[in-house]
Amino acid sequence: MLRIGTVVLGVQDLHRAARFWSAALGLRFRDGEPGPDDEWVVLDPPGGGTAVALDVSAVPVQEIPRVHLDLLVDSAAEQAAEVRRLVGLGAERVDWPLYPESPDFVVLADTEGNRFCVVDASRG
Amino acid sequence: MLRIGTVVLGVQDLHRAARFWSAALGLRFRDGEPGPDDEWVVLDPPGGGTAVALDVSAVPVQEIPRVHLDLLVDSAAEQAAEVRRLVGLGAERVDWPLYPESPDFVVLADTEGNRFCVVDASRG
Repeated sequence: MLRIGTVVLGVQDLHRAARFWSAALGLRFRDGEPGPDDEWVVLDPPGGGTAVALDVSAVPVQEIPRVHLDLLVDSAAEQAAEVRRLVGLGAERVDWPLYPESPDFVVLADTEGNRFCVVDASRG
Repeated sequence: MLRIGTVVLGVQDLHRAARFWSAALGLRFRDGEPGPDDEWVVLDPPGGGTAVALDVSAVPVQEIPRVHLDLLVDSAAEQAAEVRRLVGLGAERVDWPLYPESPDFVVLADTEGNRFCVVDASRG
């Protein structure tokens, strides 16, 4: 049956990106950590579900991306804590031009500049 | 706990895209079908897992995308059948410049031009 398998993110530095995303989401290297010449790695959630793949890419980041990931947390407090943790891992806060008033999401960029959101799912 | 919630795809025609993705993956409208003025819809897999959200966007498609979805099937025969089915739903085959020899994936574009892959997971 056709199913969502993987979200593939383009990256400049595969090892830096792999460290970030494995720590960010507690993901496991499907086939071991990437070697020095590897250009691709797949990271799986330990409980199953959608994987994240990282692919060395020269395609530029879109500052407002056509396709992006929303990560979820369950409260405003958890959102604030996770944003701090992700920034500590190498993410950056994005000066997002499209925030509404009282947004339920925070826009970050991963170590490679890929924008994603941390959404407080308790806001519905 | 921080987790992958949603993959958000930019679209021109929300209703056309919603018809395509709901049929493509058997997804259900979280809050009902979008109304005529809506610019956002969330589609959930019936068994849970990563949702697909569609967001009206003027951001252009990247012909070689920085971020994309890989959809999985379990055999070459299923891959061929699903590609036919998806094309019947409105997807288009992409003349992908980066195919390796004997690729395990087929590149399609959804009704909005967003590239994604249909991967034969049996190829490892």
